Amino acid sequence: MPEAMPRPVLTAFDWVPDFARGVVRDLRVRWALEEIGRPYATELLSARDPRPESYLAWQPFDQVPAFAEGDLKLFETGAILLYLGEQDERLLPADAQARWSAIAWLFSALNSVEPFATRIVVYDLLHKDEDWMPPAREAALGLCRQKLKRVSDALGERDWLAGPFSIADIAMVTVLNTLRHTRIVAEYPKLTAYKARGEERPAYQRALAAQLADFENEPSRAA
Amino acid sequence: MPEAMPRPVLTAFDWVPDFARGVVRDLRVRWALEEIGRPYATELLSARDPRPESYLAWQPFDQVPAFAEGDLKLFETGAILLYLGEQDERLLPADAQARWSAIAWLFSALNSVEPFATRIVVYDLLHKDEDWMPPAREAALGLCRQKLKRVSDALGERDWLAGPFSIADIAMVTVLNTLRHTRIVAEYPKLTAYKARGEERPAYQRALAAQLADFENEPSRAA
Repeated sequence: MPEAMPRPVLTAFDWVPDFARGVVRDLRVRWALEEIGRPYATELLSARDPRPESYLAWQPFDQVPAFAEGDLKLFETGAILLYLGEQDERLLPADAQARWSAIAWLFSALNSVEPFATRIVVYDLLHKDEDWMPPAREAALGLCRQKLKRVSDALGERDWLAGPFSIADIAMVTVLNTLRHTRIVAEYPKLTAYKARGEERPAYQRALAAQLADFENEPSRAA
Repeated sequence: MPEAMPRPVLTAFDWVPDFARGVVRDLRVRWALEEIGRPYATELLSARDPRPESYLAWQPFDQVPAFAEGDLKLFETGAILLYLGEQDERLLPADAQARWSAIAWLFSALNSVEPFATRIVVYDLLHKDEDWMPPAREAALGLCRQKLKRVSDALGERDWLAGPFSIADIAMVTVLNTLRHTRIVAEYPKLTAYKARGEERPAYQRALAAQLADFENEPSRAA
């Protein structure tokens, strides 16, 4: 398969502050590509300077990653993960029920869990000195815990959300990791073990190393 | 096609408070089914009483809708919309680029836009009397506006997000409608016209009428 297929390209940042290293979303796509041993190229963008206006035609929210494979362009990590999943059963099982369970959990990670985690992250990173932040955060924490408990209960004794490892786990593990600056995930032993299981995978380790390595390439440093 | 296929079943609530009528998420699935003229059955659950424990095996977050077609069960409106989209080009175009644009915008609606709209909704509905709410809401409003502006700019002069009408529009129009108690969407004339265009579709009107009609069936009222 890979010989005939064009090498995918994804966008990433050439530098981000420490708090964002290892959680920028191109990691999700790199991880999926590493799981199937698919070589890819990165197109590095500046997080500090404005991106060129033309980038919006590829990524309308001016974020990373955007993705291309030959003439096909797409954006949103959920969509990119699904696109890669359709190419390889190691990312998305072929059996109908397992496939749709994985897709349901992919959407869950991004729509039922991440929004509640992101609120905590936004408070902690963008509003930490505001008087109104602690009570607002406390209210958000209640909702976040509720969602994490649901995921923990649903996972039960299984290793992965939809049976075999899948794009759902890539999404959920990386969503849980956005809370790494807190002790919230530690309240759920099953989720803690699940996250560790994901992050121990060699493909995750290679993806993480590749993202971090790209931050060393910032042109302004080299200049 | 429809003759041979089992009638889909989705869960919905038998009653919700006024503020939620017309925005409960089963509307998204009903709308998609109405677009393709596919008959369906609803299984009504109580929003006031706890759902049976067994429901979590179908919908792990204890929400509506959950969906079944024959033996296949799934959850998350994004996943259900995609499942239906794969069955009918009127919901998801077959051309590769148009298909993946629609899927990217489906994920955008649910991951890049809805979380920022939901924060406003949560503040307005759950925390409206808290002292900390106004400044917290103001901060969230900035992010919400930023996302809406991106969608408006990307839409431009087109009628629908990915070319032809698709599941992306079902998701985005209904996400925008969660802000109906505010004037925020009105700040973006293109989004206002886009939302009206979606809500004028006969399939949307039928779906809305069906959701509202089910609220009249509450067993406790009939008793």
